[in-house]
This record gives sequence, structure tokens and C-alpha cells, in this order.
Amino acid sequence: MIRFREATRDDVRAVLALLTDDALGAAREGTDLAPYLAAFDAMKAEGGNTLIVGEKDGRIVATYQLTLISGLSLRASRRAQVESVRVATDMRGQGIGEAMFADAEARARAAGCRLMQLTMNATRRDARRFYERLGFTPSHIGFKRDLS
Amino acid sequence: MIRFREATRDDVRAVLALLTDDALGAAREGTDLAPYLAAFDAMKAEGGNTLIVGEKDGRIVATYQLTLISGLSLRASRRAQVESVRVATDMRGQGIGEAMFADAEARARAAGCRLMQLTMNATRRDARRFYERLGFTPSHIGFKRDLS
Repeated sequence: MIRFREATRDDVRAVLALLTDDALGAAREGTDLAPYLAAFDAMKAEGGNTLIVGEKDGRIVATYQLTLISGLSLRASRRAQVESVRVATDMRGQGIGEAMFADAEARARAAGCRLMQLTMNATRRDARRFYERLGFTPSHIGFKRDLS
Repeated sequence: MIRFREATRDDVRAVLALLTDDALGAAREGTDLAPYLAAFDAMKAEGGNTLIVGEKDGRIVATYQLTLISGLSLRASRRAQVESVRVATDMRGQGIGEAMFADAEARARAAGCRLMQLTMNATRRDARRFYERLGFTPSHIGFKRDLS
């Protein structure tokens, strides 16, 4: 049984380990915990921006970020945006991803969202099939611009 | 001269007109102002989720939504997400889009963001060239799932 809940500050180290345990994340995350703790505090201060962890047998095995974004477009639809999805390498293929998105959907519906959205690096081919299986449509191009 | 500023409740009607004055928006926006005013109020209540308007000679000619999203990924980068970008049909080709993104970038940098991101419906071919010219990289696939 996996249980999803809002992360606490004590979970940030485990979440960072999951972010780093990833083909793309390995190269781009740091090892100093301090900026990640500061980002966690900043998320808490922003309404509707939540870090979720999946816990199984006392271990954090999955994580995602859920951001609730109101807006005028699409008949004033509130959106639930999913970001930074990770499942521990040794725990994949057990349905944890599906359970995580069921959790995200339940939270989105409870918050009155009429749309879920996410972007995925185009090089993650397996993830594309996963999202399409869950009913997501790859209708958009996701643009990024580095400001640093 | 165009001036960008945070929208007030009195601007919501003009913003809705811009959202509707669009190939995709025409089919999917409503005419009743009430849900749009409620969404504007909800945006105000969410920290860092702002509706911006571009005003020229007393007329609202452009709009975008800017959402500041902290998160752990990418070395705890704060992101500035741009959404619902519109320029009035009769005002295109005058550099208003470029001015709007310069405004968004200035706000993003002032808020400590290290990344700007947006998604674009893949059918908007002209917009793709515009974003690439502004230095955005189409590295991601944007997935949407309707919950209604």
C-alpha cells in the first residue's frame, strides 16, 4: 500500500534523492540541501503550490508537485498543473505512477479544477506512452527559456 | 507607447474580449462575465498569479497571465509561467508581443525566477516562430486532460 500526503520539511532530503535518481535530474540537481529547503518554504508561502510524497513501508518512493492555477481562459477554468513527477528507480512497474495520478486527479477535482496539465521533456519516450494511457492529450508544445 | 500593468476587476471585460478575439478562443469562451470575474478574484487570492494588461491610448490591446511557481526541481529554481497571451487582432505586427514578453521577463527576474515557461497549442504555427525568435526552446510536450 502506498499513501500519498503533503510533504513536510523533513521529507525534502528524500524528495531531492528522487529528483536526482533520474536520467535528466542526475545532471542538473545539486547536493546542498539549503536551497531546496528554501524552495520548499517558498512553495508553502504560495497558495495552492504543494509538494506531495508517496510513502510505502515508511519510505518515500514517489513525489510530484501540484499547483492549482486559476485563470480566465477556457471559460474561467481552474487548472491543476503537475510537475516534477518521480518514482524511485527500484519501485517502477508496480502501478505507483497510476496511483500518483489518481491522487493528483482527486486533489484537482476537490479544488474545483476542470483541467489537468503537465509538460514532459520530449526525450522521455516511455513517459509519453504513460501519459497518453492516462488520458492526457499531447496537444501543446512546451517552451522553456533559461533566465540564469 | 504601450504600458503594461496589473489588471483590475474593471479590465476583466476587455480581457475576455481579447480571449475571444482568437482562432481557438472564439469557440471556447462564454459571454457571461460572472465566472470570469470570479476567476479574477480567485487569481488575486492565489499569491503570485497575476493578470497583466497592455494599455495603449486608453484601450486594453494585449493581455497575459503570469504565474510565479517555486519548486524543488532544477536546483530549486523558481519559474515564471506565461499563459493566455493575446494581442488584439488589429494591433498585431507592431511589436506588442515582444514588448509584452520583455515586460514578463522583467517581472520574472524581479521575482527571482531562473526559468520562463509556457505552452502553446501545436496548431498555432506563427506563434511557434515568435517564441523561438524570443529565445524559447520547444523542448517539451504539453499534455492536457479535461476533467469536466
